[in-house]
Amino acid sequence: MFEARLVQGALLKKLLEATRELITEANFEVSNTGISLQAMDSSHVSLVALQLRSDGFEHFRCDRTFSMGLNLNNMNKMLKCAGNDDVITMKADETADVVSFVFESPDQGRVSEFELKLMDITSENLGIPDTEYSATVSMPSSEFQRIMKDLGSIGDTVELSVTKEGIKFSTSGDIGSANVICRQTNHVDKKEEPTHIDMNEPVALTFALRYLINFTKATSLSPSVVIKLSKELPVVVEYKCADMGYVRYYLAPKIEDEEEMGE
Amino acid sequence: MFEARLVQGALLKKLLEATRELITEANFEVSNTGISLQAMDSSHVSLVALQLRSDGFEHFRCDRTFSMGLNLNNMNKMLKCAGNDDVITMKADETADVVSFVFESPDQGRVSEFELKLMDITSENLGIPDTEYSATVSMPSSEFQRIMKDLGSIGDTVELSVTKEGIKFSTSGDIGSANVICRQTNHVDKKEEPTHIDMNEPVALTFALRYLINFTKATSLSPSVVIKLSKELPVVVEYKCADMGYVRYYLAPKIEDEEEMGE
Amino acid sequence: MFEARLVQGALLKKLLEATRELITEANFEVSNTGISLQAMDSSHVSLVALQLRSDGFEHFRCDRTFSMGLNLNNMNKMLKCAGNDDVITMKADETADVVSFVFESPDQGRVSEFELKLMDITSENLGIPDTEYSATVSMPSSEFQRIMKDLGSIGDTVELSVTKEGIKFSTSGDIGSANVICRQTNHVDKKEEPTHIDMNEPVALTFALRYLINFTKATSLSPSVVIKLSKELPVVVEYKCADMGYVRYYLAPKIEDEEEMGE
Repeated sequence: MFEARLVQGALLKKLLEATRELITEANFEVSNTGISLQAMDSSHVSLVALQLRSDGFEHFRCDRTFSMGLNLNNMNKMLKCAGNDDVITMKADETADVVSFVFESPDQGRVSEFELKLMDITSENLGIPDTEYSATVSMPSSEFQRIMKDLGSIGDTVELSVTKEGIKFSTSGDIGSANVICRQTNHVDKKEEPTHIDMNEPVALTFALRYLINFTKATSLSPSVVIKLSKELPVVVEYKCADMGYVRYYLAPKIEDEEEMGE
Repeated sequence: MFEARLVQGALLKKLLEATRELITEANFEVSNTGISLQAMDSSHVSLVALQLRSDGFEHFRCDRTFSMGLNLNNMNKMLKCAGNDDVITMKADETADVVSFVFESPDQGRVSEFELKLMDITSENLGIPDTEYSATVSMPSSEFQRIMKDLGSIGDTVELSVTKEGIKFSTSGDIGSANVICRQTNHVDKKEEPTHIDMNEPVALTFALRYLINFTKATSLSPSVVIKLSKELPVVVEYKCADMGYVRYYLAPKIEDEEEMGE
Repeated sequence: MFEARLVQGALLKKLLEATRELITEANFEVSNTGISLQAMDSSHVSLVALQLRSDGFEHFRCDRTFSMGLNLNNMNKMLKCAGNDDVITMKADETADVVSFVFESPDQGRVSEFELKLMDITSENLGIPDTEYSATVSMPSSEFQRIMKDLGSIGDTVELSVTKEGIKFSTSGDIGSANVICRQTNHVDKKEEPTHIDMNEPVALTFALRYLINFTKATSLSPSVVIKLSKELPVVVEYKCADMGYVRYYLAPKIEDEEEMGE
């Protein structure tokens, strides 16, 4: 028996919007510590990991650990039927072949129950190693989203380079080139989220823009995004989910010239 | 000579938006009591009836009863050219082959005259009998619209079942199933339109969702919708038009299992 | 060396939106008096002329006159990446093959530099003669936009006829006909831009609607539009750009019946 009641149901709606294009099917692991998911996109280039801790739910019960295979587009179809102010309860039985979503309107006038069929999905858990990163950048998520979209209209790849002063995004394509510099903001009096750089050594890595653009579908989850970079390691793009978890995207850097790489 | 001046011209724009997809051509009957229209959709499954009483117009003159055959999409193209605050005057002569729409901006700075060609449309008046219904449900029109749209993403048909406690909408499809319960709201202190059930006996009927979804194009006409149900009879979905009339949609229920029906 | 810094960068964004569909490639002429452009649309039916005077820029330097051939769709792609509150600086060297656009966010936190490749474009300067027009109409640009769009849903051409009382727009098509009259507004107390007629003699000319509709993409540049008409001459549709320039569109009238024209 699994049952989890989430007062801010909109969070679950946003999580699905943030992941369903990248990963169409995935296993949700439920245990007494919470709900987690890990999956590679269909082209096996990027990885999504999400975590919602049990203590963030109004009510959470999970008698034993199990996993539910779900089609995320179908789950999204159902969650779209929840109002933004609705309380959402997820329910499932270890032996059943459906998961239930119950949506309650704030005044209790409307109660909806949606049952989604489960699927068998084979997936390996990928065990992401905990790494010390060369540079960690925190910046307004809307700013990051906008820059990715803007550069996507010029080129196919983007170089992220971090120095003490800021983070630079560079691209080039047929019509020309572009680079955007976001400076570290030290003044705390701003209304916007600050841009903050935490760096051990300068780092510059190149990524496929279309994946980064896809990651920014999580923008509505959090006002800030954290970007972690280390040479030859996948970038981590992380959005916090309220105080109860996160969604993280991983993407391996492009190796632009095989000849020069011998390390 | 027919001439009708409507100060709240936006009402006519909304009426066209509410009907033009279902019925592409129809005869508008004008008489000294007002304007009315009755037409089946092109697949002959649902019926639309609308009525605008003459006393709702600022000025209304109709020397003798006649009917104007109009293409509703073309009429809609012209009415879309009226501003939402414009006064609309309809004018036609029994012998002419056009109807005129005059739009006056509130400050009289702009006056537009559109002439729409009339068509010969053969139509039988269907004579809808006045029936006592088993259950009459009044609910917020936006809520009804939303539920129809939501369930339309899951299944093709919807069962409406009414009890003293409320109205339940149920559907199922390939990906799973859904049901939404709207409870009767007795408290009057709410800002929203109440959900009110008036019932002689419980009734449960199944309908094609896509027609009900189409009916909800009338949502902007009125904050509430009235749904009337009786066993084996077409459902009536009614939206009031200010204090001067209504648009009503009729749709026959689905008979799901011919075997079980012997009544 | 050419460098021009425009505080209200949004103006440049709007100018591109106003021209890029009509003319896909054009030479921007830069000199110490400012920036200008003149180009025919790809079908050689209409002409666009724009002018930005150097005194409207916060900083303007142009050592010698030269022209930059630009693809306006590509330039638009880059200018779309500027925020509406960004300061935009254009930079180019007479000998270089790129033009740079630098966007600075108001708080200086973000600085973007886009380099657009130049093109060789052969163009003749058309030398538009300065003419005395029979009628000059000034009216709210949003009103003009709306009327063009509305009539475009009915017919292909529009007759503009000006009298002392106002300007009339007429069209007809398969479904019927339409005419819209905008009266001269003499009262100054209105919030809207006035409709003002300055006329030597009545004039009535017919134009292809789709070009006029295209011209109204400049609507966001100015709250009013000026329309200048003379018999047998192209109409001029002019939008002012702040206090520093304008964009003008020219379109030749239709000659509806060759037989009747012998003048």
